[in-house]
Amino acid sequence: MDLVSRIEHAISSALASAESTTAPPGLAAAMRYAVFPGGARIRPRLCLAVAAACGQKDHTIADAAAVSIELLHCASLAHDDLPCFDDAATRRGKPSVHQAFGERLAVLAGDALIVLAFQNLALRAAAASSLPALLMTVSRSVGMPAGIVAGQAWECEPRVPLGDYQRAKTGALFAAAAEAGALAAGAEAQPWCLLGDRLGEAYQVADDIRDVTADANDLGKPVGRDATLGRPSAAREFGLKGALKRFEQLVAAAIDTIPDCAGTPVLRALIRAEAERLIPEELLRRAA
Amino acid sequence: MDLVSRIEHAISSALASAESTTAPPGLAAAMRYAVFPGGARIRPRLCLAVAAACGQKDHTIADAAAVSIELLHCASLAHDDLPCFDDAATRRGKPSVHQAFGERLAVLAGDALIVLAFQNLALRAAAASSLPALLMTVSRSVGMPAGIVAGQAWECEPRVPLGDYQRAKTGALFAAAAEAGALAAGAEAQPWCLLGDRLGEAYQVADDIRDVTADANDLGKPVGRDATLGRPSAAREFGLKGALKRFEQLVAAAIDTIPDCAGTPVLRALIRAEAERLIPEELLRRAA
Repeated sequence: MDLVSRIEHAISSALASAESTTAPPGLAAAMRYAVFPGGARIRPRLCLAVAAACGQKDHTIADAAAVSIELLHCASLAHDDLPCFDDAATRRGKPSVHQAFGERLAVLAGDALIVLAFQNLALRAAAASSLPALLMTVSRSVGMPAGIVAGQAWECEPRVPLGDYQRAKTGALFAAAAEAGALAAGAEAQPWCLLGDRLGEAYQVADDIRDVTADANDLGKPVGRDATLGRPSAAREFGLKGALKRFEQLVAAAIDTIPDCAGTPVLRALIRAEAERLIPEELLRRAA
Repeated sequence: MDLVSRIEHAISSALASAESTTAPPGLAAAMRYAVFPGGARIRPRLCLAVAAACGQKDHTIADAAAVSIELLHCASLAHDDLPCFDDAATRRGKPSVHQAFGERLAVLAGDALIVLAFQNLALRAAAASSLPALLMTVSRSVGMPAGIVAGQAWECEPRVPLGDYQRAKTGALFAAAAEAGALAAGAEAQPWCLLGDRLGEAYQVADDIRDVTADANDLGKPVGRDATLGRPSAAREFGLKGALKRFEQLVAAAIDTIPDCAGTPVLRALIRAEAERLIPEELLRRAA
Protein backbone atom coordinates (compact mmCIF):
# COMPACT_ATOMS: atom_id res chain seq x y z
CA MET A 1 0.00 0.00 0.00
CA ASP A 2 1.44 3.44 -0.86
CA LEU A 3 1.90 6.00 1.89
CA VAL A 4 -1.14 8.11 1.06
CA SER A 5 -3.47 5.07 0.95
CA ARG A 6 -1.99 3.88 4.22
CA ILE A 7 -2.76 7.22 5.85
CA GLU A 8 -6.32 7.32 4.49
CA HIS A 9 -6.91 3.77 5.66
CA ALA A 10 -5.55 4.46 9.15
CA ILE A 11 -7.67 7.62 9.52
CA SER A 12 -10.75 5.72 8.40
CA SER A 13 -10.09 2.96 10.95
CA ALA A 14 -9.77 5.55 13.72
CA LEU A 15 -13.11 7.08 12.73
CA ALA A 16 -14.72 3.65 12.63
CA SER A 17 -13.75 3.17 16.29
CA ALA A 18 -15.90 6.22 17.11
CA GLU A 19 -18.94 4.93 15.24
CA SER A 20 -21.62 2.51 16.37
CA THR A 21 -25.22 1.70 15.53
CA THR A 22 -26.20 3.31 18.84
CA ALA A 23 -24.27 6.55 18.20
CA PRO A 24 -26.04 9.75 17.15
CA PRO A 25 -25.87 9.47 13.34
CA GLY A 26 -25.61 13.21 12.59
CA LEU A 27 -22.41 13.64 14.57
CA ALA A 28 -20.86 10.48 13.12
CA ALA A 29 -21.55 11.82 9.62
CA ALA A 30 -20.23 15.31 10.47
CA MET A 31 -16.98 13.83 11.78
CA ARG A 32 -16.38 11.87 8.56
CA TYR A 33 -17.31 14.92 6.51
CA ALA A 34 -14.76 17.02 8.41
CA VAL A 35 -11.99 14.52 7.66
CA PHE A 36 -12.79 13.13 4.15
CA PRO A 37 -11.87 13.85 1.47
CA GLY A 38 -8.71 15.26 2.99
CA GLY A 39 -6.37 18.01 1.95
CA ALA A 40 -2.73 17.28 1.22
CA ARG A 41 -2.34 15.34 4.50
CA ILE A 42 1.02 17.07 4.77
CA ARG A 43 1.29 16.72 8.58
CA PRO A 44 0.79 12.93 8.70
CA ARG A 45 3.07 12.54 5.67
CA LEU A 46 5.76 14.53 7.48
CA CYS A 47 5.29 12.37 10.58
CA LEU A 48 5.64 9.12 8.63
CA ALA A 49 8.58 10.43 6.59
CA VAL A 50 10.49 11.33 9.77
CA ALA A 51 9.64 7.95 11.35
CA ALA A 52 10.98 6.21 8.23
CA ALA A 53 14.08 8.42 8.22
CA CYS A 54 14.67 7.42 11.86
CA GLY A 55 14.60 3.76 10.86
CA GLN A 56 11.22 2.68 12.32
CA LYS A 57 10.65 -1.03 12.18
CA ASP A 58 6.97 -1.44 12.96
CA HIS A 59 4.80 1.36 11.59
CA THR A 60 1.85 0.92 14.01
CA ILE A 61 2.96 3.68 16.38
CA ALA A 62 3.91 6.13 13.64
CA ASP A 63 0.56 5.54 11.92
CA ALA A 64 -1.25 6.18 15.22
CA ALA A 65 0.64 9.43 15.78
CA ALA A 66 0.10 10.55 12.18
CA VAL A 67 -3.64 9.88 12.41
CA SER A 68 -4.00 11.74 15.71
CA ILE A 69 -2.21 14.77 14.31
CA GLU A 70 -4.43 14.85 11.22
CA LEU A 71 -7.61 14.47 13.33
CA LEU A 72 -6.53 17.44 15.44
CA HIS A 73 -5.84 19.46 12.30
CA CYS A 74 -9.29 18.64 10.89
CA ALA A 75 -10.89 19.54 14.25
CA SER A 76 -9.20 22.92 14.18
CA LEU A 77 -10.50 23.59 10.64
CA ALA A 78 -14.09 22.74 11.65
CA HIS A 79 -13.89 25.20 14.56
CA ASP A 80 -11.97 27.91 12.66
CA ASP A 81 -14.69 27.95 10.00
CA LEU A 82 -17.49 28.53 12.56
CA PRO A 83 -19.61 31.68 12.17
CA CYS A 84 -18.02 33.24 15.28
CA PHE A 85 -14.52 32.88 13.77
CA ASP A 86 -13.93 32.94 10.00
CA ASP A 87 -17.55 32.26 9.04
CA ALA A 88 -16.22 30.34 6.04
CA ALA A 89 -18.86 28.90 3.73
CA THR A 90 -16.46 26.55 1.94
CA ARG A 91 -13.46 24.39 2.78
CA ARG A 92 -11.57 21.99 0.54
CA GLY A 93 -13.93 22.90 -2.27
CA LYS A 94 -17.16 21.91 -0.52
CA PRO A 95 -19.47 23.51 2.07
CA SER A 96 -17.78 23.88 5.46
CA VAL A 97 -18.93 21.58 8.26
CA HIS A 98 -21.28 24.14 9.82
CA GLN A 99 -22.78 24.92 6.40
CA ALA A 100 -23.45 21.25 5.75
CA PHE A 101 -24.47 20.09 9.26
CA GLY A 102 -25.30 23.22 11.22
CA GLU A 103 -23.31 25.06 13.84
CA ARG A 104 -24.05 22.66 16.71
CA LEU A 105 -22.75 19.58 14.94
CA ALA A 106 -19.71 21.54 13.70
CA VAL A 107 -18.81 22.43 17.30
CA LEU A 108 -19.36 18.83 18.40
CA ALA A 109 -17.49 17.33 15.44
CA GLY A 110 -14.45 19.41 16.42
CA ASP A 111 -14.77 18.36 20.06
CA ALA A 112 -15.21 14.70 19.17
CA LEU A 113 -12.24 14.73 16.79
CA ILE A 114 -10.01 16.21 19.50
CA VAL A 115 -11.07 13.48 21.91
CA LEU A 116 -10.67 10.80 19.22
CA ALA A 117 -7.10 11.93 18.57
CA PHE A 118 -6.17 11.05 22.15
CA GLN A 119 -8.33 7.93 22.28
CA ASN A 120 -6.62 6.74 19.09
CA LEU A 121 -3.19 7.14 20.69
CA ALA A 122 -4.38 5.27 23.78
CA LEU A 123 -5.79 2.48 21.63
CA ARG A 124 -3.05 2.05 19.02
CA ALA A 125 0.04 3.11 20.94
CA ALA A 126 -0.86 1.58 24.32
CA ALA A 127 2.15 -0.73 24.25
CA ALA A 128 4.64 1.94 23.18
CA SER A 129 7.17 3.06 25.77
CA SER A 130 6.98 6.44 24.04
CA LEU A 131 3.24 6.86 24.80
CA PRO A 132 3.69 9.55 27.49
CA ALA A 133 6.13 11.52 25.30
CA LEU A 134 3.84 11.20 22.29
CA LEU A 135 0.88 12.44 24.33
CA MET A 136 2.85 15.41 25.64
CA THR A 137 4.16 16.31 22.20
CA VAL A 138 0.76 16.09 20.54
CA SER A 139 -1.23 17.79 23.31
CA ARG A 140 1.27 20.65 23.67
CA SER A 141 0.98 21.36 19.96
CA VAL A 142 -2.78 21.91 20.08
CA GLY A 143 -3.39 23.28 23.57
CA MET A 144 -2.34 26.22 25.67
CA PRO A 145 -0.04 28.07 26.06
CA ALA A 146 1.44 27.74 22.55
CA GLY A 147 -0.54 25.25 20.42
CA ILE A 148 -3.30 25.67 17.82
CA VAL A 149 -5.98 26.94 20.21
CA ALA A 150 -3.52 29.51 21.54
CA GLY A 151 -2.88 30.60 17.95
CA GLN A 152 -6.59 30.91 17.31
CA ALA A 153 -7.01 32.82 20.59
CA TRP A 154 -4.44 35.40 19.48
CA GLU A 155 -7.03 36.40 16.86
CA CYS A 156 -9.22 37.55 19.78
CA GLU A 157 -6.54 39.88 21.20
CA PRO A 158 -6.19 43.58 20.36
CA ARG A 159 -2.47 43.14 19.67
CA VAL A 160 -1.11 40.06 17.97
CA PRO A 161 2.59 39.19 17.97
CA LEU A 162 2.99 37.76 14.41
CA GLY A 163 5.69 35.26 15.39
CA ASP A 164 3.87 33.81 18.42
CA TYR A 165 0.64 33.69 16.44
CA GLN A 166 2.06 31.83 13.43
CA ARG A 167 4.18 29.54 15.58
CA ALA A 168 1.15 28.52 17.63
CA LYS A 169 -1.45 28.40 14.89
CA THR A 170 0.59 26.45 12.33
CA GLY A 171 4.17 25.77 13.41
CA ALA A 172 3.36 23.86 16.58
CA LEU A 173 1.47 21.03 14.87
CA PHE A 174 4.12 20.71 12.15
CA ALA A 175 6.80 20.50 14.82
CA ALA A 176 4.73 17.90 16.67
CA ALA A 177 4.33 15.87 13.46
CA ALA A 178 8.09 15.73 12.97
CA GLU A 179 8.81 15.06 16.65
CA ALA A 180 6.13 12.39 16.95
CA GLY A 181 7.56 10.62 13.90
CA ALA A 182 10.93 10.42 15.63
CA LEU A 183 9.39 9.30 18.95
CA ALA A 184 7.34 6.64 17.17
CA ALA A 185 10.56 5.22 15.73
CA GLY A 186 12.16 5.18 19.17
CA ALA A 187 14.44 8.12 18.34
CA GLU A 188 14.91 11.44 20.14
CA ALA A 189 12.36 14.11 19.26
CA GLN A 190 14.43 17.22 19.83
CA PRO A 191 16.61 17.14 16.67
CA TRP A 192 13.45 17.19 14.54
CA CYS A 193 11.69 20.09 16.22
CA LEU A 194 13.35 22.81 14.13
CA LEU A 195 12.42 21.07 10.86
CA GLY A 196 8.75 21.04 11.80
CA ASP A 197 8.97 24.57 13.08
CA ARG A 198 10.38 26.01 9.87
CA LEU A 199 8.09 23.97 7.65
CA GLY A 200 5.15 25.18 9.70
CA GLU A 201 6.20 28.79 9.26
CA ALA A 202 6.77 28.23 5.53
CA TYR A 203 3.31 26.70 5.27
CA GLN A 204 1.72 29.66 7.06
CA VAL A 205 3.54 32.16 4.81
CA ALA A 206 2.40 30.16 1.75
CA ASP A 207 -1.16 30.26 3.09
CA ASP A 208 -0.93 34.03 3.49
CA ILE A 209 0.43 34.35 -0.07
CA ARG A 210 -2.28 32.13 -1.51
CA ASP A 211 -4.92 34.11 0.36
CA VAL A 212 -3.96 37.17 -1.75
CA THR A 213 -2.98 35.49 -5.06
CA ALA A 214 -5.20 32.45 -5.60
CA ASP A 215 -8.77 32.32 -6.76
CA ALA A 216 -11.40 30.62 -4.62
CA ASN A 217 -11.79 27.64 -6.98
CA ASP A 218 -8.10 26.79 -6.81
CA LEU A 219 -7.98 27.24 -3.06
CA GLY A 220 -11.23 25.46 -2.20
CA LYS A 221 -12.01 28.14 0.38
CA PRO A 222 -12.72 31.88 0.32
CA VAL A 223 -9.80 34.20 -0.60
CA GLY A 224 -8.87 37.58 0.85
CA ARG A 225 -10.03 36.46 4.31
CA ASP A 226 -6.96 37.68 6.19
CA ALA A 227 -7.59 41.28 5.16
CA THR A 228 -11.37 40.97 5.66
CA LEU A 229 -10.87 39.58 9.16
CA GLY A 230 -7.96 41.89 10.03
CA ARG A 231 -5.75 38.89 10.68
CA PRO A 232 -1.97 39.07 10.80
CA SER A 233 -0.48 37.99 7.46
CA ALA A 234 3.06 37.75 6.14
CA ALA A 235 1.83 38.94 2.74
CA ARG A 236 0.40 42.08 4.33
CA GLU A 237 3.41 42.63 6.59
CA PHE A 238 6.21 42.07 4.04
CA GLY A 239 4.37 42.62 0.76
CA LEU A 240 3.92 39.81 -1.77
CA LYS A 241 7.54 39.91 -2.96
CA GLY A 242 8.90 39.90 0.60
CA ALA A 243 6.59 37.06 1.59
CA LEU A 244 7.69 34.95 -1.39
CA LYS A 245 11.31 35.52 -0.47
CA ARG A 246 10.59 34.58 3.12
CA PHE A 247 8.91 31.38 1.91
CA GLU A 248 11.98 30.39 -0.13
CA GLN A 249 14.28 31.08 2.81
CA LEU A 250 12.17 29.01 5.18
CA VAL A 251 12.03 26.01 2.86
CA ALA A 252 15.81 26.14 2.43
CA ALA A 253 16.26 26.51 6.19
CA ALA A 254 13.94 23.54 6.81
CA ILE A 255 15.94 21.34 4.47
CA ASP A 256 19.14 22.48 6.18
CA THR A 257 17.95 21.30 9.57
CA ILE A 258 17.36 17.67 8.54
CA PRO A 259 19.64 15.56 10.72
CA ASP A 260 22.03 13.40 8.72
CA CYS A 261 20.49 9.93 8.42
CA ALA A 262 19.59 7.26 5.90
CA GLY A 263 16.27 8.92 5.10
CA THR A 264 17.67 12.40 4.38
CA PRO A 265 17.34 12.30 0.55
CA VAL A 266 13.70 11.12 0.68
CA LEU A 267 12.78 13.80 3.20
CA ARG A 268 14.48 16.52 1.15
CA ALA A 269 12.59 15.42 -1.96
CA LEU A 270 9.28 15.40 -0.04
CA ILE A 271 9.83 18.93 1.22
CA ARG A 272 10.83 20.25 -2.22
CA ALA A 273 7.77 18.66 -3.84
CA GLU A 274 5.49 20.08 -1.15
CA ALA A 275 7.02 23.55 -1.54
CA GLU A 276 6.40 23.43 -5.30
CA ARG A 277 2.80 22.33 -4.66
CA LEU A 278 2.25 25.23 -2.29
CA ILE A 279 3.96 27.96 -4.31
CA PRO A 280 4.78 26.95 -7.89
CA GLU A 281 8.31 27.95 -8.92
CA GLU A 282 6.85 30.01 -11.75
CA LEU A 283 5.25 32.37 -9.21
CA LEU A 284 8.52 32.69 -7.34
CA ARG A 285 10.34 33.55 -10.59
CA ARG A 286 7.72 36.05 -11.69
CA ALA A 287 8.02 37.91 -8.38
CA ALA A 288 11.84 37.75 -8.23
CA MET B 1 -5.24 19.21 53.36
CA ASP B 2 -8.90 18.15 53.14
CA LEU B 3 -10.17 16.46 50.02
CA VAL B 4 -11.92 19.47 48.53
CA SER B 5 -8.87 21.72 48.99
CA ARG B 6 -6.69 19.02 47.48
CA ILE B 7 -8.93 18.87 44.40
CA GLU B 8 -8.98 22.67 44.00
CA HIS B 9 -5.22 22.82 44.38
CA ALA B 10 -4.65 20.05 41.83
CA ILE B 11 -6.99 21.68 39.30
CA SER B 12 -5.25 25.01 39.77
CA SER B 13 -1.83 23.41 39.19
CA ALA B 14 -3.09 21.84 35.97
CA LEU B 15 -4.34 25.20 34.73
CA ALA B 16 -1.04 26.83 35.66
CA SER B 17 0.71 24.38 33.32
CA ALA B 18 -1.35 25.84 30.46
CA GLU B 19 -0.46 29.43 31.29
CA SER B 20 2.61 31.43 30.34
CA THR B 21 3.58 35.07 29.90
CA THR B 22 3.62 34.44 26.14
CA ALA B 23 0.14 32.87 26.03
CA PRO B 24 -2.88 34.81 24.77
CA PRO B 25 -4.21 36.32 28.02
CA GLY B 26 -7.90 36.28 27.12
CA LEU B 27 -8.02 32.53 26.63
CA ALA B 28 -6.02 31.88 29.80
CA ALA B 29 -8.53 33.98 31.74
CA ALA B 30 -11.53 32.30 30.09
CA MET B 31 -10.18 28.85 30.99
CA ARG B 32 -9.82 29.77 34.68
CA TYR B 33 -13.24 31.40 34.62
CA ALA B 34 -14.78 28.20 33.23
CA VAL B 35 -13.27 26.13 36.05
CA PHE B 36 -13.32 28.41 39.14
CA PRO B 37 -15.20 28.74 41.36
CA GLY B 38 -16.36 25.20 40.81
CA GLY B 39 -19.64 23.44 41.41
CA ALA B 40 -19.87 20.50 43.79
CA ARG B 41 -16.84 18.79 42.14
CA ILE B 42 -18.82 15.58 42.54
CA ARG B 43 -17.00 13.71 39.74
CA PRO B 44 -13.46 14.24 41.09
CA ARG B 45 -14.71 13.51 44.61
CA LEU B 46 -16.19 10.23 43.40
CA CYS B 47 -12.92 9.39 41.65
CA LEU B 48 -10.84 10.04 44.77
CA ALA B 49 -13.32 8.22 47.03
CA VAL B 50 -13.15 5.10 44.85
CA ALA B 51 -9.33 5.30 44.70
CA ALA B 52 -9.25 5.51 48.50
CA ALA B 53 -11.73 2.65 48.82
CA CYS B 54 -9.46 0.57 46.57
CA GLY B 55 -6.57 1.20 48.93
CA GLN B 56 -4.46 3.63 46.86
CA LYS B 57 -1.07 4.33 48.35
CA ASP B 58 0.20 7.33 46.40
CA HIS B 59 -2.52 9.78 45.43
CA THR B 60 -0.67 11.40 42.47
CA ILE B 61 -2.36 9.28 39.81
CA ALA B 62 -5.84 9.53 41.34
CA ASP B 63 -5.47 13.31 41.61
CA ALA B 64 -4.41 13.48 37.96
CA ALA B 65 -7.42 11.42 36.86
CA ALA B 66 -9.81 13.43 39.05
CA VAL B 67 -8.51 16.72 37.63
CA SER B 68 -8.78 15.54 34.01
CA ILE B 69 -12.35 14.43 34.56
CA GLU B 70 -13.33 17.78 36.10
CA LEU B 71 -11.63 19.73 33.29
CA LEU B 72 -13.62 17.72 30.73
CA HIS B 73 -16.82 18.39 32.66
CA CYS B 74 -16.11 22.15 32.74
CA ALA B 75 -15.29 22.09 29.01
CA SER B 76 -18.64 20.48 28.28
CA LEU B 77 -20.46 23.16 30.30
CA ALA B 78 -18.71 25.98 28.40
CA HIS B 79 -19.78 24.44 25.08
CA ASP B 80 -23.29 23.43 26.22
CA ASP B 81 -23.98 27.04 27.22
CA LEU B 82 -23.04 28.43 23.78
CA PRO B 83 -25.68 30.37 21.85
CA CYS B 84 -26.08 27.54 19.31
CA PHE B 85 -26.91 25.05 22.12
CA ASP B 86 -28.60 26.16 25.35
CA ASP B 87 -27.81 29.87 24.95
CA ALA B 88 -27.51 30.05 28.75
CA ALA B 89 -26.72 33.48 30.14
CA THR B 90 -25.72 32.19 33.58
CA ARG B 91 -23.91 29.20 35.05
CA ARG B 92 -22.96 28.55 38.68
CA GLY B 93 -24.56 31.89 39.59
CA LYS B 94 -22.43 34.06 37.30
CA PRO B 95 -22.45 34.96 33.59
CA SER B 96 -21.67 31.94 31.39
CA VAL B 97 -18.27 31.85 29.66
CA HIS B 98 -19.57 33.19 26.35
CA GLN B 99 -21.43 36.00 28.14
CA ALA B 100 -18.28 37.02 29.99
CA PHE B 101 -15.65 36.45 27.26
CA GLY B 102 -17.54 36.23 23.98
CA GLU B 103 -18.44 33.23 21.89
CA ARG B 104 -15.00 32.74 20.32
CA LEU B 105 -13.16 32.44 23.61
CA ALA B 106 -15.90 30.18 24.99
CA VAL B 107 -15.39 27.77 22.07
CA LEU B 108 -11.61 27.93 22.52
CA ALA B 109 -11.76 27.59 26.32
CA GLY B 110 -13.72 24.35 25.87
CA ASP B 111 -11.25 23.09 23.27
CA ALA B 112 -8.24 24.02 25.39
CA LEU B 113 -9.71 22.36 28.51
CA ILE B 114 -10.31 19.13 26.58
CA VAL B 115 -6.70 19.14 25.42
CA LEU B 116 -5.44 20.05 28.89
CA ALA B 117 -7.29 17.07 30.38
CA PHE B 118 -5.20 14.71 28.26
CA GLN B 119 -2.00 16.72 28.63
CA ASN B 120 -2.50 16.61 32.40
CA LEU B 121 -2.75 12.81 32.34
CA ALA B 122 0.38 12.60 30.19
CA LEU B 123 2.24 14.91 32.55
CA ARG B 124 1.13 13.60 35.94
CA ALA B 125 0.46 9.93 35.20
CA ALA B 126 3.36 9.33 32.78
CA ALA B 127 4.92 6.73 35.06
CA ALA B 128 1.67 4.86 35.78
CA SER B 129 1.32 1.43 34.22
CA SER B 130 -2.39 2.22 34.09
CA LEU B 131 -1.87 5.24 31.77
CA PRO B 132 -3.26 3.56 28.62
CA ALA B 133 -6.32 2.25 30.51
CA LEU B 134 -6.88 5.65 32.15
CA LEU B 135 -6.69 7.36 28.78
CA MET B 136 -9.14 4.91 27.22
CA THR B 137 -11.57 5.21 30.13
CA VAL B 138 -11.50 8.99 30.18
CA SER B 139 -11.58 9.51 26.40
CA ARG B 140 -14.40 7.00 25.88
CA SER B 141 -16.52 8.86 28.44
CA VAL B 142 -16.35 12.17 26.58
CA GLY B 143 -16.06 11.16 22.93
CA MET B 144 -18.03 9.18 20.40
CA PRO B 145 -19.92 6.87 20.20
CA ALA B 146 -21.27 7.09 23.78
CA GLY B 147 -19.58 9.89 25.76
CA ILE B 148 -20.58 13.48 26.56
CA VAL B 149 -20.30 14.81 22.99
CA ALA B 150 -22.47 11.93 21.79
CA GLY B 151 -25.01 12.87 24.47
CA GLN B 152 -24.97 16.48 23.35
CA ALA B 153 -25.29 15.35 19.71
CA TRP B 154 -28.48 13.42 20.53
CA GLU B 155 -30.03 16.86 21.15
CA CYS B 156 -29.52 17.52 17.42
CA GLU B 157 -31.47 14.40 16.34
CA PRO B 158 -35.19 14.32 15.53
CA ARG B 159 -35.69 11.27 17.79
CA VAL B 160 -33.82 10.92 21.07
CA PRO B 161 -33.62 7.62 22.93
CA LEU B 162 -33.86 8.86 26.58
CA GLY B 163 -31.64 6.10 28.00
CA ASP B 164 -28.81 6.46 25.45
CA TYR B 165 -29.00 10.23 25.78
CA GLN B 166 -28.75 10.32 29.58
CA ARG B 167 -26.16 7.57 29.71
CA ALA B 168 -23.93 9.45 27.28
CA LYS B 169 -24.53 12.98 28.49
CA THR B 170 -24.14 12.33 32.21
CA GLY B 171 -23.66 8.68 33.10
CA ALA B 172 -20.52 8.09 31.04
CA LEU B 173 -18.36 10.64 32.88
CA PHE B 174 -19.61 9.47 36.28
CA ALA B 175 -18.76 5.88 35.31
CA ALA B 176 -15.33 7.04 34.13
CA ALA B 177 -14.75 8.87 37.42
CA ALA B 178 -15.42 5.70 39.40
CA GLU B 179 -13.44 3.46 37.03
CA ALA B 180 -10.49 5.87 36.86
CA GLY B 181 -10.36 5.95 40.66
CA ALA B 182 -10.02 2.18 40.72
CA LEU B 183 -7.42 2.17 37.92
CA ALA B 184 -5.41 4.88 39.67
CA ALA B 185 -5.23 2.66 42.76
CA GLY B 186 -4.06 -0.29 40.65
CA ALA B 187 -7.41 -2.07 40.97
CA GLU B 188 -9.73 -3.39 38.28
CA ALA B 189 -12.10 -0.81 36.80
CA GLN B 190 -14.99 -3.05 35.82
CA PRO B 191 -16.56 -3.63 39.30
CA TRP B 192 -16.96 0.16 39.67
CA CYS B 193 -18.60 0.90 36.35
CA LEU B 194 -22.15 0.21 37.52
CA LEU B 195 -21.78 2.53 40.53
CA GLY B 196 -20.79 5.44 38.29
CA ASP B 197 -23.48 4.55 35.82
CA ARG B 198 -26.31 4.62 38.35
CA LEU B 199 -25.01 7.72 40.08
CA GLY B 200 -24.82 9.43 36.72
CA GLU B 201 -28.40 8.55 35.93
CA ALA B 202 -29.50 9.68 39.39
CA TYR B 203 -27.68 12.96 38.86
CA GLN B 204 -29.36 13.51 35.49
CA VAL B 205 -32.81 12.75 36.93
CA ALA B 206 -32.08 15.18 39.81
CA ASP B 207 -31.07 17.81 37.25
CA ASP B 208 -34.35 17.28 35.37
CA ILE B 209 -36.30 17.57 38.66
CA ARG B 210 -34.46 20.74 39.69
CA ASP B 211 -35.08 22.22 36.25
CA VAL B 212 -38.82 22.13 37.00
CA THR B 213 -38.82 22.76 40.78
CA ALA B 214 -35.94 25.12 41.64
CA ASP B 215 -35.73 28.85 41.18
CA ALA B 216 -32.89 30.30 39.13
CA ASN B 217 -31.10 31.80 42.16
CA ASP B 218 -30.88 28.43 43.87
CA LEU B 219 -29.78 26.69 40.73
CA GLY B 220 -27.30 29.31 39.50
CA LYS B 221 -28.53 28.80 35.94
CA PRO B 222 -31.82 29.33 34.08
CA VAL B 223 -34.75 27.01 34.99
CA GLY B 224 -37.34 25.42 32.71
CA ARG B 225 -34.76 25.01 29.95
CA ASP B 226 -35.59 21.37 29.16
CA ALA B 227 -39.14 22.23 28.15
CA THR B 228 -38.05 25.42 26.35
CA LEU B 229 -35.43 23.52 24.38
CA GLY B 230 -37.61 20.45 23.84
CA ARG B 231 -35.01 18.28 25.52
CA PRO B 232 -35.72 14.81 26.88
CA SER B 233 -36.36 14.98 30.63
CA ALA B 234 -37.25 12.39 33.25
CA ALA B 235 -39.52 14.93 34.97
CA ARG B 236 -41.43 15.41 31.73
CA GLU B 237 -41.49 11.71 30.90
CA PHE B 238 -42.49 10.29 34.32
CA GLY B 239 -44.04 13.36 35.98
CA LEU B 240 -42.46 14.97 39.05
CA LYS B 241 -43.58 12.23 41.43
CA GLY B 242 -42.37 9.47 39.13
CA ALA B 243 -39.03 11.22 38.62
CA LEU B 244 -38.50 11.61 42.40
CA LYS B 245 -39.23 7.92 42.87
CA ARG B 246 -36.81 7.04 40.08
CA PHE B 247 -34.16 9.22 41.78
CA GLU B 248 -34.57 7.37 45.09
CA GLN B 249 -34.37 3.99 43.38
CA LEU B 250 -31.21 4.95 41.51
CA VAL B 251 -29.44 6.19 44.64
CA ALA B 252 -30.34 2.98 46.46
CA ALA B 253 -29.21 0.91 43.46
CA ALA B 254 -25.92 2.83 43.31
CA ILE B 255 -25.21 2.14 46.96
CA ASP B 256 -26.04 -1.54 46.39
CA THR B 257 -23.40 -1.88 43.69
CA ILE B 258 -20.47 -0.78 45.87
CA PRO B 259 -18.06 -3.71 45.96
CA ASP B 260 -17.32 -4.91 49.48
CA CYS B 261 -14.08 -3.27 50.60
CA ALA B 262 -12.56 -1.27 53.44
CA GLY B 263 -13.84 2.01 52.00
CA THR B 264 -17.47 0.95 51.62
CA PRO B 265 -18.90 2.92 54.61
CA VAL B 266 -17.20 6.18 53.54
CA LEU B 267 -18.44 5.82 49.97
CA ARG B 268 -21.98 5.08 51.14
CA ALA B 269 -21.96 8.17 53.32
CA LEU B 270 -20.64 10.31 50.48
CA ILE B 271 -23.38 9.14 48.12
CA ARG B 272 -26.13 9.69 50.72
CA ALA B 273 -24.87 13.21 51.46
CA GLU B 274 -24.69 14.05 47.77
CA ALA B 275 -28.21 12.70 47.19
CA GLU B 276 -29.53 14.90 50.01
CA ARG B 277 -27.71 17.91 48.54
CA LEU B 278 -29.27 17.26 45.12
CA ILE B 279 -32.82 16.50 46.26
CA PRO B 280 -33.51 17.35 49.92
CA GLU B 281 -35.39 14.59 51.72
CA GLU B 282 -38.16 17.04 52.51
CA LEU B 283 -38.99 17.31 48.80
CA LEU B 284 -39.05 13.53 48.50
CA ARG B 285 -41.42 13.26 51.46
CA ARG B 286 -43.71 16.01 50.20
CA ALA B 287 -44.08 14.26 46.83
CA ALA B 288 -44.49 10.76 48.33
